[in-house]
Amino acid sequence: MSEIRQDIVTGKHVIIAVERGKRPHDFSRKEEVKEREFCPFCEGNEKETPPEVAALRDKSNLKADTPGWRIRVVPNKFAAVNPEEKLKLLQTGIYTYLTGKGAAEVVIESPDHHSTLGSHNLQHVEDLLQIIQDRFLNLSRDKEIRYVQIFKNYGSVAGASLEHPHWQIISTPLIPTVQIEELKGAAAYFNEHGRCVFCTMIAAEKESRTRLVAENDFFIAFCPYASRYPFETWILPEDHQSTFGSLTEGEITSLARILQGIIHQLEEGFNPPYNLIIHSAPVGDAQANHFHWHIEILPRLTITAGFELGTGIFINPIAPEIAAETLKL
Amino acid sequence: MSEIRQDIVTGKHVIIAVERGKRPHDFSRKEEVKEREFCPFCEGNEKETPPEVAALRDKSNLKADTPGWRIRVVPNKFAAVNPEEKLKLLQTGIYTYLTGKGAAEVVIESPDHHSTLGSHNLQHVEDLLQIIQDRFLNLSRDKEIRYVQIFKNYGSVAGASLEHPHWQIISTPLIPTVQIEELKGAAAYFNEHGRCVFCTMIAAEKESRTRLVAENDFFIAFCPYASRYPFETWILPEDHQSTFGSLTEGEITSLARILQGIIHQLEEGFNPPYNLIIHSAPVGDAQANHFHWHIEILPRLTITAGFELGTGIFINPIAPEIAAETLKL
Repeated sequence: MSEIRQDIVTGKHVIIAVERGKRPHDFSRKEEVKEREFCPFCEGNEKETPPEVAALRDKSNLKADTPGWRIRVVPNKFAAVNPEEKLKLLQTGIYTYLTGKGAAEVVIESPDHHSTLGSHNLQHVEDLLQIIQDRFLNLSRDKEIRYVQIFKNYGSVAGASLEHPHWQIISTPLIPTVQIEELKGAAAYFNEHGRCVFCTMIAAEKESRTRLVAENDFFIAFCPYASRYPFETWILPEDHQSTFGSLTEGEITSLARILQGIIHQLEEGFNPPYNLIIHSAPVGDAQANHFHWHIEILPRLTITAGFELGTGIFINPIAPEIAAETLKL
Repeated sequence: MSEIRQDIVTGKHVIIAVERGKRPHDFSRKEEVKEREFCPFCEGNEKETPPEVAALRDKSNLKADTPGWRIRVVPNKFAAVNPEEKLKLLQTGIYTYLTGKGAAEVVIESPDHHSTLGSHNLQHVEDLLQIIQDRFLNLSRDKEIRYVQIFKNYGSVAGASLEHPHWQIISTPLIPTVQIEELKGAAAYFNEHGRCVFCTMIAAEKESRTRLVAENDFFIAFCPYASRYPFETWILPEDHQSTFGSLTEGEITSLARILQGIIHQLEEGFNPPYNLIIHSAPVGDAQANHFHWHIEILPRLTITAGFELGTGIFINPIAPEIAAETLKL
């Protein structure tokens, strides 16, 4: 029997369509055959990107935009927004728009074209998360910015136009819809129950363990009850924390461990294309205390088609309970 | 300069990223190379689908589930919902779900595997829309159903798992998120301006003509101001009408003409994969008078990736003004 499950935060529904009878092994590993084209993110090609805004470099070469780096952050050459744009709210006939103010940066994960997030050593993942947090905080300081979106696209199906491992950060001068919905849901739950809805979920998932994937000193990972995607996995700090920006060094070590473990597991298993998305409180939103920041890993094994786009209801052929069993660390 | 445009109905934003400098001819026609596998929708294979629930048949053979049909409606063999399911709202721990009640039907557009929506003759498209409306009304009669979603996936990238031309209808026992958002936006606009927001848009688009694609006696088509997808096109009845179910025979003729013209144009142009989605008022919702039913054609030429999934903000590299110029009939 299929179940139409409701997301406890946003109130949105998903259909867990067990009738389709898909099992985890139906999602077999798909090798992406790629021609090795010229890659602007590879070591030695530093001049092909805009000048770096940050980098992790060996002491032997601290000179920007030259080889010798381990992580490198550059503005996106094909940015949809511009940090120098003057923010204005304008009207055209009955419609309104904002000028395209915002930053778009690329975090090049490693000089090694063929490395992956799951194959780096732990220290490297820590360094990566640290530099991403630095950029997050830096971009948050712009008074005209309301949200900073950190994400990673892995695999062309998930929207990665370059194979070389990288993350992206895009800041926006408005609070996006998804964040408005999550904040509204979290606030409504808090007002009714006097408790953070994510903290409530964490307690429930720890107790039932049926959707639990991993847990360590600071973090927990589970497949959410209303998973939209097969093998959708969330990583949350166990203690209430509203923004990724307030993560301490010790917590970053802990996050690196759980994140790397899950991604390694996915890569070794069926290596799905995925989007990794950090959901954090909007910049400078005092109302956002109810929010609980987290990472969503969304494997892209199904196609979002007319029904999903028309209704917002996702059909997921793999129950999160089965996904968690497969992914459990 | 990019523009962060706001959808006047839902308040959602899109980034029209003109900096990316894409032009319509960058979206070249992609021929899908498909192996000709056994097709359960082809004439002669009627026994491979569940028994038909409706069909348009020549008088020479009215016998169900045999050849001699021109349009055929069958339950989806791999349905995510079940019309016989008893609707119940259930609790599991802190979460709630509904049993998977709902119908899922497939409308096989034609016996000809290689025909397309754009290549049928006009009478056939009229017959098709008529039979789809009949099924819509039929499924709407179920007292436990709150919404009936009609859609078509064209091309594997857009989620069509079978190449044989078909539409789908899925009914749900709840009003989906997208419809809740649209209804809320339409009601808010009506309360503030005393006018339907879609009627307002139609008047504005008729006047400016910069995004106009086609117009006839009953219908208008334009690329919406806040288009999420390149070449996104909406078709709306010019006079206010909240549900697809109340379309008259004369209006269906008119709809067939404008729809077939646009799809033919797309197919002859760059033949994109697309989702076609009918947005109609929820079943039996007396509040839905503010709503204005319409068709959304969403070409799938871009990939919805981490930024879109994380924020709900779509990045569209083709301004609707340029798209309309290309599509104009």
